[in-house]
Amino acid sequence: MRLNNIFIKENERIDDLHRNGYLIIQDPEKFCFGVDAVLLSGFAKVKKGEKVIDLGTGTGVIPILLEGRYGGDDYFGIDIQAESVEMAKRSVELNSLGDKIEIMECDIKNVFQYFKPSDFDVVVSNPPYMTAGGAIINKFDSKAIARHEILCNLEDVISASSKLLKFGGRFYMIHRPYRLVDIFVLFRKYNIEPKVVRFVHSYFDREPTMVLIEGSRGGKAMLKVLPPLVIYDESGNYTDEIFNIYYD
Amino acid sequence: MRLNNIFIKENERIDDLHRNGYLIIQDPEKFCFGVDAVLLSGFAKVKKGEKVIDLGTGTGVIPILLEGRYGGDDYFGIDIQAESVEMAKRSVELNSLGDKIEIMECDIKNVFQYFKPSDFDVVVSNPPYMTAGGAIINKFDSKAIARHEILCNLEDVISASSKLLKFGGRFYMIHRPYRLVDIFVLFRKYNIEPKVVRFVHSYFDREPTMVLIEGSRGGKAMLKVLPPLVIYDESGNYTDEIFNIYYD
Repeated sequence: MRLNNIFIKENERIDDLHRNGYLIIQDPEKFCFGVDAVLLSGFAKVKKGEKVIDLGTGTGVIPILLEGRYGGDDYFGIDIQAESVEMAKRSVELNSLGDKIEIMECDIKNVFQYFKPSDFDVVVSNPPYMTAGGAIINKFDSKAIARHEILCNLEDVISASSKLLKFGGRFYMIHRPYRLVDIFVLFRKYNIEPKVVRFVHSYFDREPTMVLIEGSRGGKAMLKVLPPLVIYDESGNYTDEIFNIYYD
Repeated sequence: MRLNNIFIKENERIDDLHRNGYLIIQDPEKFCFGVDAVLLSGFAKVKKGEKVIDLGTGTGVIPILLEGRYGGDDYFGIDIQAESVEMAKRSVELNSLGDKIEIMECDIKNVFQYFKPSDFDVVVSNPPYMTAGGAIINKFDSKAIARHEILCNLEDVISASSKLLKFGGRFYMIHRPYRLVDIFVLFRKYNIEPKVVRFVHSYFDREPTMVLIEGSRGGKAMLKVLPPLVIYDESGNYTDEIFNIYYD
């Protein structure tokens, strides 16, 4: 089928992003975004005139949501998977954002074949969470590539982010709390100082399942830990804050 | 005055620890423990037969509370301030714990003049939180020494702890969240892997004011972030959990 003259494949579905009327194409078998991408786009801040790149952009949801929230016209999203890049490009076109968001097929390890160092104000990333070791993973399985550190690991993401950022530029990432020590140590190694963290809890009295992190390239040591971000209230409904991130 | 044949000075006061009937001597002008020491003693675990040392023991409250909670007879508390050591010794005697808890005057930097490396199962510390720089601090002010990194800094505490611990031994510390990056980086530097953290919030929707950390010497990388520890409920009363830490 076609929507706004954009081709939608049979296996794809279209969802409403509840922001500026934007829509997104997803493939339930291969590339879907999760609550983590939405939380990251609610946590990241983009100021007027800033240049932004999303590493491992998948469906392209993060640059689309950031443009919807902050405006701006200098967004890039890269991904190593050709199929997901092709689909994300169509989502960008579907929302007529082609002059503001560029989606590119690019391996994070070769990012400097396409971009200059110190050229970005903001880097965002919702990287694969799970280490590659242990589970038997099919290297041609696109879901596995998006979720496991098969083609890039945490250090690849952080080292590339540091080099992409201007001095004073900001890096926003979401990850699992159990990796927080590795995250802090690698941020320091690559001269990105962790400045803000926020833990995401399904319920306020449960262990956090995700952590949002803001770092500053070359920043001074002084961490701010925000109040917990709680997804569900005691009745199992979205808290006001989550409702606002999704629908405000 | 005298209590149980122990001399109590005029400037001192005696408080009930609400555990085994134990009492503690404090000097409101110089050495008092805070909620942080109580929370740390509720967070730390001591198993049967383990040898435990508290670095910067102040009033001696932590070894006294740990003995009250877990039993055991192999506790040490060291402090650099002679006056506080003398007072803590009297608190130990006041509770007839002289055969279980030894308080010693000792600079953390010279700790291996008194103790062998790798000799402890558990190290606990509620160290000075504030960096020495900036504020004008009187080096003879005992309160300032207990609170600021004048005579020892975070790295001194962590390096000594690592060397005191057996392989697999546990280090329990409470500190300020804004130092968490330094803490994780220094733990790794000295081969203590952070295993558990718990943030302490006055109210559940506020930023945490303290963080409890458990590390394991030589442990594998895998951090557990516990649910928030909340001090006051919405009515401003202690939460059940805090009530239990103080009074169970």
